[in-house]
Amino acid sequence: MSEVFRLQSKVRDYELDMQGIVNNGVYFNYLEHARHEYLLAKGVDFAALTAQGIHLVVIRSELDYKNSLKSGDEFVVQVELERISKVKFGFRQKVIRVADEKLCVEGLVIGTALNERGRPYISPEIEALFSA
Amino acid sequence: MSEVFRLQSKVRDYELDMQGIVNNGVYFNYLEHARHEYLLAKGVDFAALTAQGIHLVVIRSELDYKNSLKSGDEFVVQVELERISKVKFGFRQKVIRVADEKLCVEGLVIGTALNERGRPYISPEIEALFSA
Amino acid sequence: MSEVFRLQSKVRDYELDMQGIVNNGVYFNYLEHARHEYLLAKGVDFAALTAQGIHLVVIRSELDYKNSLKSGDEFVVQVELERISKVKFGFRQKVIRVADEKLCVEGLVIGTALNERGRPYISPEIEALFSA
Amino acid sequence: MSEVFRLQSKVRDYELDMQGIVNNGVYFNYLEHARHEYLLAKGVDFAALTAQGIHLVVIRSELDYKNSLKSGDEFVVQVELERISKVKFGFRQKVIRVADEKLCVEGLVIGTALNERGRPYISPEIEALFSA
Repeated sequence: MSEVFRLQSKVRDYELDMQGIVNNGVYFNYLEHARHEYLLAKGVDFAALTAQGIHLVVIRSELDYKNSLKSGDEFVVQVELERISKVKFGFRQKVIRVADEKLCVEGLVIGTALNERGRPYISPEIEALFSA
Repeated sequence: MSEVFRLQSKVRDYELDMQGIVNNGVYFNYLEHARHEYLLAKGVDFAALTAQGIHLVVIRSELDYKNSLKSGDEFVVQVELERISKVKFGFRQKVIRVADEKLCVEGLVIGTALNERGRPYISPEIEALFSA
Repeated sequence: MSEVFRLQSKVRDYELDMQGIVNNGVYFNYLEHARHEYLLAKGVDFAALTAQGIHLVVIRSELDYKNSLKSGDEFVVQVELERISKVKFGFRQKVIRVADEKLCVEGLVIGTALNERGRPYISPEIEALFSA
Repeated sequence: MSEVFRLQSKVRDYELDMQGIVNNGVYFNYLEHARHEYLLAKGVDFAALTAQGIHLVVIRSELDYKNSLKSGDEFVVQVELERISKVKFGFRQKVIRVADEKLCVEGLVIGTALNERGRPYISPEIEALFSA
């Protein structure tokens, strides 16, 4: 069974749009940051890989927006990893409001890793994510 | 047959991330801006609706990332509207690089409209989008 | 003597630009978020004031960029408030990298408060910031 | 006499904050994009320089916020270059609303160029900006 990584943050007011709620595009930022923190906790350093010419890239995202975050809200972003194919991995992610535990966004973000020639390349660190 | 709305823009360097490509989250911004411009061209003013307490909101997005945009790239965002149910509408969207006409992102963004009490409410302007 | 408010955060990778450092514009976000958290800690809720039609606005900013933040860096944003005139207040702010206590950005952000007619209006909550 | 470069754009709704106006931090983005377009028009490609290890960086910014941009506003960003010292250059910039020619933001952004060892290095392309 896969474990769930959790990262807690607080809404920043510049992330709100004219509706007074966190803009849809910002959730992608929240989700990305939580994925990178998850990877780092597992020994996969996104920035170090980038510097080596290995690019972790998103190839598909599916997000459902259920409830909105507002000014002052604390939230947790969850990350759960699953293998989708030899070269694709999926992050099941949720954004949950702390105050009432309401689900705000949930989704699946599918990624792969590319080497300097743009070919799929699952490096040993990334492979190790699935071998535990 | 539904017509296709097109909006051309150019990548701004602050939209790039450490990989030197437009960050995934930024495509959400591109797609939103094109949807709002499309709606405005059709007589639906997002900001004016917001001021009246009618909130157009995204409830689901599915995006496929095919190719990356880089510094200096010009791109076109396409918008095509379809009715999904009485209270849901879908925007089929594409981001196409101008130089080689490569598809960079394509996706479906599903939205609805909510009144001040948070209830689905398809105002006459929005209804008119489908009656042409 | 005025006290110093501190807020610690961590760089998020989407905040980096193609140079692999936090983009200049992002510091403005960091500074704003710290100002709002400072104000909230003092009983001034930016979002609640906005909902009442009182808009806290920035009228001038002066920022010196000394060192860059990178992926993984933790940093502290400092906020110190000073009265500049009857209707203007200044926030002296610093962004300091935690690892080596290097100053990354320092600056002065000058703001005022406007009522619904766009006139300067220092509400009692804001006035109280200076009376301690 | 130095000439003035102009770049016209339109506010994008995701750039607005809860006050319904363009967020202060976004003007930094507008100004940066205009600077890069100005430089490109003069033969200085920011991204190409970055790839060569020459980093153009901002060391100071002073901005005055005069009027706010809102949803739907078209605006022009002006750029005028001046030499400040052997290794520092200044961009005098203005953001002007098209509809009424009101000045929204004006400021001075001071930059330098650094080589791979972090030393000031004014490359020939950059030097040429001042020799016309």
